[in-house]
Amino acid sequence: MSVRDDVLQIARQAKQAARFLAAAGAVRKNQALEAMAEAVQSQEAAILAANEQDVAAARRAGKNTAFLDRLALTPERIAAMGHGLRAVAQLPDPVGEVVRMGPRPNGLIIGKMRVPLGVIGIIYESRPDVTGDCAGLCLKSGNAVILRGGSEALRSNQAIFQALNAALARSGFPPGCIALVPTAEREAVGVLLSLNDYIDLIIPRGGEALIRTVTEESKIPVIKHYKGICHTYVDDAADLAMAEEIAFNAKVQRPATCNAMECLLVHAAVAEAFLPRAIARLRNAGVEIRGCARTQAIVPGVQAAGEQDYATEYLDLILSVRVVRDMDEACAHIERFGTRHSEAIVTENLARGMRFLKEVDAACVYVNASTRFTDGNQFGLGAEMGISTDKLHARGPMGLEELTTYKYIILGNGQVRA
Amino acid sequence: MSVRDDVLQIARQAKQAARFLAAAGAVRKNQALEAMAEAVQSQEAAILAANEQDVAAARRAGKNTAFLDRLALTPERIAAMGHGLRAVAQLPDPVGEVVRMGPRPNGLIIGKMRVPLGVIGIIYESRPDVTGDCAGLCLKSGNAVILRGGSEALRSNQAIFQALNAALARSGFPPGCIALVPTAEREAVGVLLSLNDYIDLIIPRGGEALIRTVTEESKIPVIKHYKGICHTYVDDAADLAMAEEIAFNAKVQRPATCNAMECLLVHAAVAEAFLPRAIARLRNAGVEIRGCARTQAIVPGVQAAGEQDYATEYLDLILSVRVVRDMDEACAHIERFGTRHSEAIVTENLARGMRFLKEVDAACVYVNASTRFTDGNQFGLGAEMGISTDKLHARGPMGLEELTTYKYIILGNGQVRA
Repeated sequence: MSVRDDVLQIARQAKQAARFLAAAGAVRKNQALEAMAEAVQSQEAAILAANEQDVAAARRAGKNTAFLDRLALTPERIAAMGHGLRAVAQLPDPVGEVVRMGPRPNGLIIGKMRVPLGVIGIIYESRPDVTGDCAGLCLKSGNAVILRGGSEALRSNQAIFQALNAALARSGFPPGCIALVPTAEREAVGVLLSLNDYIDLIIPRGGEALIRTVTEESKIPVIKHYKGICHTYVDDAADLAMAEEIAFNAKVQRPATCNAMECLLVHAAVAEAFLPRAIARLRNAGVEIRGCARTQAIVPGVQAAGEQDYATEYLDLILSVRVVRDMDEACAHIERFGTRHSEAIVTENLARGMRFLKEVDAACVYVNASTRFTDGNQFGLGAEMGISTDKLHARGPMGLEELTTYKYIILGNGQVRA
Repeated sequence: MSVRDDVLQIARQAKQAARFLAAAGAVRKNQALEAMAEAVQSQEAAILAANEQDVAAARRAGKNTAFLDRLALTPERIAAMGHGLRAVAQLPDPVGEVVRMGPRPNGLIIGKMRVPLGVIGIIYESRPDVTGDCAGLCLKSGNAVILRGGSEALRSNQAIFQALNAALARSGFPPGCIALVPTAEREAVGVLLSLNDYIDLIIPRGGEALIRTVTEESKIPVIKHYKGICHTYVDDAADLAMAEEIAFNAKVQRPATCNAMECLLVHAAVAEAFLPRAIARLRNAGVEIRGCARTQAIVPGVQAAGEQDYATEYLDLILSVRVVRDMDEACAHIERFGTRHSEAIVTENLARGMRFLKEVDAACVYVNASTRFTDGNQFGLGAEMGISTDKLHARGPMGLEELTTYKYIILGNGQVRA
């Protein structure tokens, strides 16, 4: 069979399975999630063996340490996948929830019922632990899922998929609820993105290049995540000790993540009091500082920050710092350079906190906390399918509810339109 | 200036205006809507004069009666536009609503705040009364709007736009809140669809060909409406008198609309009792019946319905009728031929009503009522920007809430991530 036929067959089966999943109740789905968690752990040896082959091949291909670290599975990571599946089983089932239900003057009762999207395609890079998370969230939200992981992780993903799929079959679920594209051929992605009659949503996870390619090529709606250039604005009414803790955490705790701070904005009135201590502490942690002229005047030895710095997602221990005249200038900077991901203000002034919440256009807007909290788990969603920097359908961390849509339900007793 | 420059300038100004609108409160927006309503009525003579020119040109170009009827404005239609704007002013403001707000174990308080989408582009055909409705809904939901009506209505739209825009200026709103593409050039649509840095959403309204072109060409997310092949299923537990009223209304009351019934499905056990009377009544109203073999056996003189009939949106006084073995067969027929728009069951059996609501995949699912109610006004949304047959972001009639997105707001007192 051709790659096209392979992918088409998977998509057809997924669409069939989606009808079953949409009608499956929470008890049944939770039992399946438990069985999936057990299967991943009982198949640990097979999964690790497959993963070893992937890692060896990637090492031979000259992949760097960071890549190999994302690719490698350990007994701990496999246990975490099992915990993740059990955690999803504990979450409330979003399917069937009815909201905004009420009577109309003619006696019709109208409301919105939450229902699964149908079939979700996920295109991700070589992190095999994502396989378990995505399969669990899609199953619980009643969606069939088609997984397309990075080609370097194909053996690992196949081993995980076999464990999950066997557990589903034992739980009485039809084939197709979880599908894995069985080839590393790039052509398969193109085929997947063309199947808008079978797939309802595509979620690409990975680098900017992957996401741009998917978005441009797809005939299916895409929810995506581009860059995270996140700011922390230290207002003149900030508690400066708190601001220092928050800025330090947002930059240093895990700098390679999309919710880490890339630029610190400081009100001119507190710059001299705040910057010397804060920058000394950041430098102690290995952070390179690039600052505006005001920052350079206050703290010796700071390299100049250019426009290019403000527009860069460093994902590294580098921070640009800019002293701003006032909150207007801070908001204008965020409007210009921010990527609508996560933005924070540190202030004890209520009006300014409220204004920041209202006016700053981003998926997540913080008052007095570190932007590092932008994460499905931290937000109480249990897990996440990714973080959306889009505005349509879902914004920010995407959990179970974001994988659903609604339908209007209308109850009558014979109403006709006049 | 080139068409591209023209459209780009409008889009830039709209993006600027969107920031103002996002922060404008309900009182201010409602005053503007009142002023817009007044302006449309005080400018009635100018609008009618411009419309007369459009109608004359369309008549010379040989457009048919239905086209001319949609294009023509009357004092009544202008008054209705004014009423529509005032009705939107009366609706609650969706912007700023906060939902699902609550504490996390670390003391962070997290919720979702409803915010405008930003800039919305609407591409529609030659119905100038749509201009007022869309402008009103976008303004109330805090969005800037770029209107691109059919080229045959350009003079009418310009006159309406001038009235609306002057009212906004008098109310202290900046230019760009409502924009009209000032040219009938087709090139302008292509430019509009390429401006994904300025426009957040495109809504095409019109025939299937227009919608397909827009969807294929757009780099901006599109919410759209394709066909409405709506079914009414008369269950064996139906109140047959009620079923007759509902079927008659769904077919006859306004057959050219997308929510009119195109196919009647009847349980075999009640077909003989139900069909002769129901079909006689429909025929009396001028409806042509095309039926399956069972229907033909029960009612003399019925033309045979083929697969092609079941797949056709007649938008006319034609109805296909099929006798089904049971509810499973009815649901399978809807799954195969339905367009996920509006589907109805008539039954007195609670379990079957519940099953239909749960299992039928459509934007609007009815028990014991006519599908003709699928409409923003009828659903209590005040007005509608259109009806979505998509699954993402909005489904069914789109009102104010559907023109918004959300952002997460996170209130802390110094939380950092461990």
